[in-house]
Amino acid sequence: MSFNTFGHVFRFTTWGESHGPAIGAVVDGCPPGIPLSETDIQPWLDQRRPGTSRFTTQRQEPDQVRILSGVFEGRTTGTPISLMIENVDQRSKDYSEVAKAYRPGHADYAYDAKYGFRDYRGGGRSSARETASRVAAGAVARCVIPEVTITAWVEAIGGDAIDPANFDVAEIGRNPFFCPDAQAAARWETLVDAARKSGSSLGAIVACAATGVPAGWGAPLYAKLDAELAAACMGINAVKGVEIGDGFGAATLRGEDNADPMRPGADGPEFLANHAGGIAGGIATGQPVTLRVAFKPTSSILTPVATISPTGEAAEIATRGRHDPCVGIRGVPVVEAMVALVLADQKLLHHAQCGGGIG
Amino acid sequence: MSFNTFGHVFRFTTWGESHGPAIGAVVDGCPPGIPLSETDIQPWLDQRRPGTSRFTTQRQEPDQVRILSGVFEGRTTGTPISLMIENVDQRSKDYSEVAKAYRPGHADYAYDAKYGFRDYRGGGRSSARETASRVAAGAVARCVIPEVTITAWVEAIGGDAIDPANFDVAEIGRNPFFCPDAQAAARWETLVDAARKSGSSLGAIVACAATGVPAGWGAPLYAKLDAELAAACMGINAVKGVEIGDGFGAATLRGEDNADPMRPGADGPEFLANHAGGIAGGIATGQPVTLRVAFKPTSSILTPVATISPTGEAAEIATRGRHDPCVGIRGVPVVEAMVALVLADQKLLHHAQCGGGIG
Amino acid sequence: MSFNTFGHVFRFTTWGESHGPAIGAVVDGCPPGIPLSETDIQPWLDQRRPGTSRFTTQRQEPDQVRILSGVFEGRTTGTPISLMIENVDQRSKDYSEVAKAYRPGHADYAYDAKYGFRDYRGGGRSSARETASRVAAGAVARCVIPEVTITAWVEAIGGDAIDPANFDVAEIGRNPFFCPDAQAAARWETLVDAARKSGSSLGAIVACAATGVPAGWGAPLYAKLDAELAAACMGINAVKGVEIGDGFGAATLRGEDNADPMRPGADGPEFLANHAGGIAGGIATGQPVTLRVAFKPTSSILTPVATISPTGEAAEIATRGRHDPCVGIRGVPVVEAMVALVLADQKLLHHAQCGGGIG
Amino acid sequence: MSFNTFGHVFRFTTWGESHGPAIGAVVDGCPPGIPLSETDIQPWLDQRRPGTSRFTTQRQEPDQVRILSGVFEGRTTGTPISLMIENVDQRSKDYSEVAKAYRPGHADYAYDAKYGFRDYRGGGRSSARETASRVAAGAVARCVIPEVTITAWVEAIGGDAIDPANFDVAEIGRNPFFCPDAQAAARWETLVDAARKSGSSLGAIVACAATGVPAGWGAPLYAKLDAELAAACMGINAVKGVEIGDGFGAATLRGEDNADPMRPGADGPEFLANHAGGIAGGIATGQPVTLRVAFKPTSSILTPVATISPTGEAAEIATRGRHDPCVGIRGVPVVEAMVALVLADQKLLHHAQCGGGIG
Repeated sequence: MSFNTFGHVFRFTTWGESHGPAIGAVVDGCPPGIPLSETDIQPWLDQRRPGTSRFTTQRQEPDQVRILSGVFEGRTTGTPISLMIENVDQRSKDYSEVAKAYRPGHADYAYDAKYGFRDYRGGGRSSARETASRVAAGAVARCVIPEVTITAWVEAIGGDAIDPANFDVAEIGRNPFFCPDAQAAARWETLVDAARKSGSSLGAIVACAATGVPAGWGAPLYAKLDAELAAACMGINAVKGVEIGDGFGAATLRGEDNADPMRPGADGPEFLANHAGGIAGGIATGQPVTLRVAFKPTSSILTPVATISPTGEAAEIATRGRHDPCVGIRGVPVVEAMVALVLADQKLLHHAQCGGGIG
Repeated sequence: MSFNTFGHVFRFTTWGESHGPAIGAVVDGCPPGIPLSETDIQPWLDQRRPGTSRFTTQRQEPDQVRILSGVFEGRTTGTPISLMIENVDQRSKDYSEVAKAYRPGHADYAYDAKYGFRDYRGGGRSSARETASRVAAGAVARCVIPEVTITAWVEAIGGDAIDPANFDVAEIGRNPFFCPDAQAAARWETLVDAARKSGSSLGAIVACAATGVPAGWGAPLYAKLDAELAAACMGINAVKGVEIGDGFGAATLRGEDNADPMRPGADGPEFLANHAGGIAGGIATGQPVTLRVAFKPTSSILTPVATISPTGEAAEIATRGRHDPCVGIRGVPVVEAMVALVLADQKLLHHAQCGGGIG
Repeated sequence: MSFNTFGHVFRFTTWGESHGPAIGAVVDGCPPGIPLSETDIQPWLDQRRPGTSRFTTQRQEPDQVRILSGVFEGRTTGTPISLMIENVDQRSKDYSEVAKAYRPGHADYAYDAKYGFRDYRGGGRSSARETASRVAAGAVARCVIPEVTITAWVEAIGGDAIDPANFDVAEIGRNPFFCPDAQAAARWETLVDAARKSGSSLGAIVACAATGVPAGWGAPLYAKLDAELAAACMGINAVKGVEIGDGFGAATLRGEDNADPMRPGADGPEFLANHAGGIAGGIATGQPVTLRVAFKPTSSILTPVATISPTGEAAEIATRGRHDPCVGIRGVPVVEAMVALVLADQKLLHHAQCGGGIG
Repeated sequence: MSFNTFGHVFRFTTWGESHGPAIGAVVDGCPPGIPLSETDIQPWLDQRRPGTSRFTTQRQEPDQVRILSGVFEGRTTGTPISLMIENVDQRSKDYSEVAKAYRPGHADYAYDAKYGFRDYRGGGRSSARETASRVAAGAVARCVIPEVTITAWVEAIGGDAIDPANFDVAEIGRNPFFCPDAQAAARWETLVDAARKSGSSLGAIVACAATGVPAGWGAPLYAKLDAELAAACMGINAVKGVEIGDGFGAATLRGEDNADPMRPGADGPEFLANHAGGIAGGIATGQPVTLRVAFKPTSSILTPVATISPTGEAAEIATRGRHDPCVGIRGVPVVEAMVALVLADQKLLHHAQCGGGIG
């Protein structure tokens, strides 16, 4: 993991800015012979795509992905897979305001502090638009781990959480919030609409479960499965917290309440609980890998906020124009993609050290 | 970051098992000319050392570190620094019980699933004893970042949190809990004693603040400062959650409440809040870098728990003998070390790309 | 260095096949603020471009490079620089012959042995066409090391070497062989023409000198400057040998004849010889870094050669159509590019560990 | 590959100086379950050990290796294997002369230029003593690739080459020169003795062949098998050149003379020649992997050489005391070790991407 590359043996490198001609990802280390075409990738991009409901930014991007290399006659060749998505809706708006004042909560000031200057158009490289590259790369990763099913959903928006009793996985795809609780989805419609109309924004919690991860994937001690997942998810724009299994809740438990007892089962060991979120010692236990990710509220809001200019003068800025009222919603496919990318990498790492076929 | 090595240009590799002859770390990429001797490292190890109070395991380990290379005439030479700590108190106890049944919550089953067999004595490689190597390496890292002050403390044990109003940094070193709130420390004495006596264990939350981190450190997009911190801390034994700044709390906020407004100050920009925990877009903003880490309760408890044997039969296990009633307490110096290691690496990465002296 | 990425902190990743829609490179870790546009890259690509004389392949490729990211208002931003070159002259020839029999000397059999199948059109990923990506990335690297001047030339073709007494650096650009000896260039015209007409091919030796490399660049022990140069050059298509300084010649010398004595000079130390090729202990000494690279003769020849088919039957193959009669000639800009890429990386690595500005 | 670590998934990190208390290597990524003890490592160290004949340095080092971690009940556990060799014969000689003047040909000046100062005792980190760590790590690597047989030998000393007609692999172990030609060995006795007595030194060429490498190992494009071997061998102390297969000789050939024709064989494809040295496109072809490595003459000689002091004054230095008259001789086990380390890594990388058991 270094700069703009993620992963050890299944690796991807992303490039591109919000308002450049295109963005993309190069996926390296993919096993050969895997059927792959744009139609395996596009559906995931469509989930993340902006402009599909009034609860996301109105930037219109078709997010059409092209495979430029690494696939021959419909199958991966084992060489780098170059994925490119053209930027279409680079609205020729006036960015002079963003150029003249740092937007609090955004990376504007930090990028200038680091690099001396920045591409300020639409957030440049720090735009959440880059996550489209992750989703595209993640779609390739999914093909490497057909034994695994990854499902993410929004668990809470602005502090309003789903009722676990209402959890219905089929519901996730039926509403614009990736919400598994139909009642919560109805409440969130009002909640998010209100935030959007008032120019405010809301934070959210995204949960994710990966089932089918074989016991044994993971690489102690400094490529632990949970550590890699933490890095993968904390690196998503707007994320401020990651927990595995019971996470912060585990810090309030006593040992006997946090244990995951085992017993012999028909198909191998069975666990009677999963406080650990499917990972012990950095290695998968075979239980579902579960995690939760905290997204802060979108930093772009209509309320003016005190700030400074690049030359250090006091200023004030309000973000007009297109933005997501709750960036966590579109974080769902991104979390899924990052989890897929970590798992594909760990699968190959495991095969490197401990053997096993491509599967 | 790969297997047993952490970091990009300031890197360390650890080795060793709980009951082998020794454990150690090789620190690579350290700038030359930095004064370094065992006395710069030992005090941090002494903080983590077991057996210093009745609230930690009674294993007696002097944890004396030796520098075997990389230092000449009292200064680092720029070559690898080999640090070794001999294991002294490898109690010749009977491990047949641990060999015969997987301890729930421990890595026993996962290691066997991965590697086919394991060194079961005292947890082998997955023992928290390995964190002594981290603390030793972290002590070297501190010397690389003299501009930074890192302070961690225990914020809650078993759900009983400190009162922020009582926060006194000087108090941290005065009690066996690294607790900045004298009243909480008094309560915890009872709390932890009760857990210890009943053979139970408690979870904890460790908080950490690093001040003096210059704006600009950090490396988007896949070596983001927050992502690296998340990986570093999630990889510590027993950690199940990491958050930066407001973390999961941010997910409940509205955009205007989560903003960190700026204004011109006497010594450059001033921030009016620090919800972001000192990091934006994966890059330090110059504010204190703040994070919180959730430790699960120690998995070793006296209460028997259902489990299975390596051959798959039903079994039951209770962990007698020496263990920490609250492993989070001794997590404090480990969290500090990991934060130091990330920051030293990021400082050098920043110099690689953006220039700047050794400082 | 891993799979399709080269470098530690200044890194590039290439992608693309000979007959896909495009090839490209993503350059990561570039310092910010460096003036860069396509016009800084195109001249180097033009040097490597095929079809410029009758001594190279007649494939017509304009090799127009586009910068898709990482540059804003004419300067690098510190974010990944995506470079793309479209494949234009993918002659729709019949590749069924190449699909049916492994070309000896080419990677056909090895790729199939590794991946199970391959993109056989024009060599697919193993085509020397990929080196255009290296040259493009190398052009960026040159901008990172303005203090260094890199010059490569052809020293021998088919065993016919230049006369060092005739060496004239200005001559290199005046003939189609990158030959610094006008008399040798005249001879090679006949030599290469004859090989071309008879459908044969010739090997070559490319020499390279980098002046201005400051003493101190290099990173012992496993990122030694000479080791990195060796990997960089040995990885170029058709290269079979690399030597630094006197190279294999040094193996015939006695210690006193191989010494590079030093004396005080006006601007620091002066060396009285450079048998070492400017590198000692893996670190630059400040002398010119010199190396020589052996290119085998192009494997594509008209003479039929015995081979087998993918299904294991005996076959015979002759390569008709476009190819370089001496692939070493166009190796010159590629060697220069790889040297530039290694030096840029080593410069930044040096700054990471030992400080120093971007300069 | 970075600083003091070599390899991608099978990796080793070395530490230690010539005159420190010890040197060592940490081997990471080793597959679990492989039988390993000190007796698997010691014989290879004994081959490299100094002081075994009058043709090597008279420093007396038993080079006893200890395994400090990663092995349990006689088998590797998959965790880091820490290997340590104590320095015993750190002769308490006066190093003031070496401290006061840079030894030409050595890394003295370069280290000072890089790091500002150095451990000058016996060459410090740049001493060939470090290669003992490589040999120890290489012995572990051999256990990972039981299908491969690696044999290296000295092919020429001071320009006096063996006669291929006399090649007898059994002879290699019968003389102090690792020479497969008994007649050449007899000549070299006189040759090296004369150099030793006159305080001079001789260069050498070491050749190596690895048989049993399966077709398919290797990782294009920037972890090519030949590129990795080149880096591995060029990084050995005193090495100035590396060639694969016909190497520089291939540069003098015509395409038809350099072809390696194939035909169907009883056990798969058969090659009728091996100019390529068993590697095409960076991937093994299944033929023997062959390479040659050029060692310069030992830089330590009795003849005084002009040099400068660390403060820049003119000086003269002659190296009295213990040294190898031909450092290439003891390079043989080091070349074998590096080849083993590359192959073990490539085997695991291949399994990562393309599957296959531990074997």
